[in-house]
Amino acid sequence: MQPFPPDAGVPGFRFGAVTCGIKNTVKKDLGIIVSDRPCSAAGVFTRNRVKAAPVHICRRHLAGGTARAVIANSGNANACTGAAGADAARRVCRALAGHLGLPPRMVLPCSTGVIGVPFPADTVIRALPDLVHCPAPGGAAAFAEAIMTTDTRPKITALRAGADPGALSMLGIAKGSGMIMPDMATMLAFIVTDAAIEPPLLKTLLQAHAAETFNRISVDGDMSTNDTVLILAGNRSRTAVTGTTSRLGRMFDRLLFATMDALARMIVLDGEGATKLITIRVVRAPTEGDALKAARRIANSCLVKTAFFGEDFNWGRIMGALGSSGARVDQDRVCLSYNGIPAVRRGVALPDNIPQLKATVKKKEIELEVDLQAGRAQCRYLTCDLSYEYVKINADYTT
Amino acid sequence: MQPFPPDAGVPGFRFGAVTCGIKNTVKKDLGIIVSDRPCSAAGVFTRNRVKAAPVHICRRHLAGGTARAVIANSGNANACTGAAGADAARRVCRALAGHLGLPPRMVLPCSTGVIGVPFPADTVIRALPDLVHCPAPGGAAAFAEAIMTTDTRPKITALRAGADPGALSMLGIAKGSGMIMPDMATMLAFIVTDAAIEPPLLKTLLQAHAAETFNRISVDGDMSTNDTVLILAGNRSRTAVTGTTSRLGRMFDRLLFATMDALARMIVLDGEGATKLITIRVVRAPTEGDALKAARRIANSCLVKTAFFGEDFNWGRIMGALGSSGARVDQDRVCLSYNGIPAVRRGVALPDNIPQLKATVKKKEIELEVDLQAGRAQCRYLTCDLSYEYVKINADYTT
Repeated sequence: MQPFPPDAGVPGFRFGAVTCGIKNTVKKDLGIIVSDRPCSAAGVFTRNRVKAAPVHICRRHLAGGTARAVIANSGNANACTGAAGADAARRVCRALAGHLGLPPRMVLPCSTGVIGVPFPADTVIRALPDLVHCPAPGGAAAFAEAIMTTDTRPKITALRAGADPGALSMLGIAKGSGMIMPDMATMLAFIVTDAAIEPPLLKTLLQAHAAETFNRISVDGDMSTNDTVLILAGNRSRTAVTGTTSRLGRMFDRLLFATMDALARMIVLDGEGATKLITIRVVRAPTEGDALKAARRIANSCLVKTAFFGEDFNWGRIMGALGSSGARVDQDRVCLSYNGIPAVRRGVALPDNIPQLKATVKKKEIELEVDLQAGRAQCRYLTCDLSYEYVKINADYTT
Repeated sequence: MQPFPPDAGVPGFRFGAVTCGIKNTVKKDLGIIVSDRPCSAAGVFTRNRVKAAPVHICRRHLAGGTARAVIANSGNANACTGAAGADAARRVCRALAGHLGLPPRMVLPCSTGVIGVPFPADTVIRALPDLVHCPAPGGAAAFAEAIMTTDTRPKITALRAGADPGALSMLGIAKGSGMIMPDMATMLAFIVTDAAIEPPLLKTLLQAHAAETFNRISVDGDMSTNDTVLILAGNRSRTAVTGTTSRLGRMFDRLLFATMDALARMIVLDGEGATKLITIRVVRAPTEGDALKAARRIANSCLVKTAFFGEDFNWGRIMGALGSSGARVDQDRVCLSYNGIPAVRRGVALPDNIPQLKATVKKKEIELEVDLQAGRAQCRYLTCDLSYEYVKINADYTT
């Protein structure tokens, strides 16, 4: 598996972006992805019971398992906008489909930004003639910029595997920085590949890897109303992926996991106000459910996150969070380590290691291992610290 | 029901406090409450699976439903201290019982402070001769000071109901400012009363009101390893409280609720870094469980709390939190109001009210009503905002 320059693109796909004016700034706020031919397509969506209008429409348009285009905007989430919001999203799909000569159900709409503000469909529709002329194979960076909100940088990953003529390319783009604790998918993420693969298998793999990547990250414990991950497979590769047991199937599966994992990491690294990336590994848990409960509780504890910001290896807060997680925990068995340095053995501190622990929590990336000694299940979860800057961003910015 | 000056005390109880040196400062860090005669006693404790040593001992000592003394320290939680911690707490109980001429099981120990540091039993025991000589009926303020950690002020409430000779007095003391989202009790809270009441009824009432008061508050969503609420009833009143249907029973019940509610409010008002008290009322929920899930999720959302700090009536974040709470919510029925000013009707914003909403979120106390229009259950929950100061306190302080 090799990275490649994102502006080399993926055969068959074009990306474009413009400033349409939703944001009232000079920043790009509207982007499209267009495929030369019908793609196998799949998506996973937020499980928040309050869902944005485009989430409902996207899901409906994906019912047939095929798509040709994605349209995504930042600056307005089109959430809590009632029937008018749904109507606005449908009008945009119809207008873009008209420009591209497609049926509207081949267009997948996504929005991100402020909740509860009427969606300016006319502003978007007026920008479409420009937008449909700009897409280029190398436009992924522009598209990634157009979907940013509080993100400080665009998030793109481009990976290729195998040798020609059987090589596969995959390009992933995501946005997300706050309101991040997805429980089905995350924020907005778009993946395109030239692989040939049937929609049902594509959906199965996307869901399986979402559970291990996007669903195992948290910036602030808040789940968005708009979380969406979409994948479009251009069906250009000579041989079709028909399962995950063949060589090609394993290659595709690894490529997809690596792409999704890279995007999930980028989101946490660019978490609002984040100064550190914390990887929590809960091991030897009674069940996967226990491991996930423990990891998620630690990852979302304000006290744990502020301690990491203060570069304090505060294992008492980890124990407190662990014990209240709902996971089955016997405190007299718990062992904790930071970047491999033991801090707690069987529930009791190891004071000899304090100097090394103090040094290791100053690093930018910290791996916290929580060993429950109670079984064989495990879980990995990514989070970041909680800083002044997080408070500043969210006290000042209206999402 | 009338407040009275806390230094008037409650007949039969004395309070004392000293600086024993756990904290290495001149601040008081050890206090006792002593009753002239055996009390009916009850407690509720943290449901955190990681529990401090004194929590286990307190619960065991309460098995008989009677007690004569409480000893509480700040600066060391005696949590995650293994067998040595349990032994230390037992030694302190035995030593105090010796000074007071009581069986050790009549002493209830409580600790709060840093987790995982060996408990300095000898330091405490050396201070006992001074401590047992200082208690006075008016010493509640000194005791309240001795149990403070990041609290910025002592928390005391004193209420009297009825007319002599049937009057009842009740005095409550609490500490708590961070690591606050109790799920059974909270932090440390001590209540003394001269009422005559049997232990089983006392326990029932304490548990019922804890569910409505201490279990409905959150500062940061973090549950402590040491949460304990104790009540000692001195059995001095002429007539015994035998139920909650008699006039006396109703009076006692109201007094107990008012005391616990006042302490719970004080904890949230003094929440780490808090600048605002937010009362969340979820009404017309399908079940009480749904109402509580919704309220707790909103109360613990970092995005909601930072918005309140920024004096931004950010109802989109309320909707996002509500939808991800697990409560059964139909977004097209939800109505939101801030201090009685409607912000959302049936899931859609009311832009005409924006000027009034902007003004009302500048107040120090905000009541947020979340009307689900889906049933008859309801729930009240208290929380505070999330400020720079919270991050500062918790990045710098080791709990």
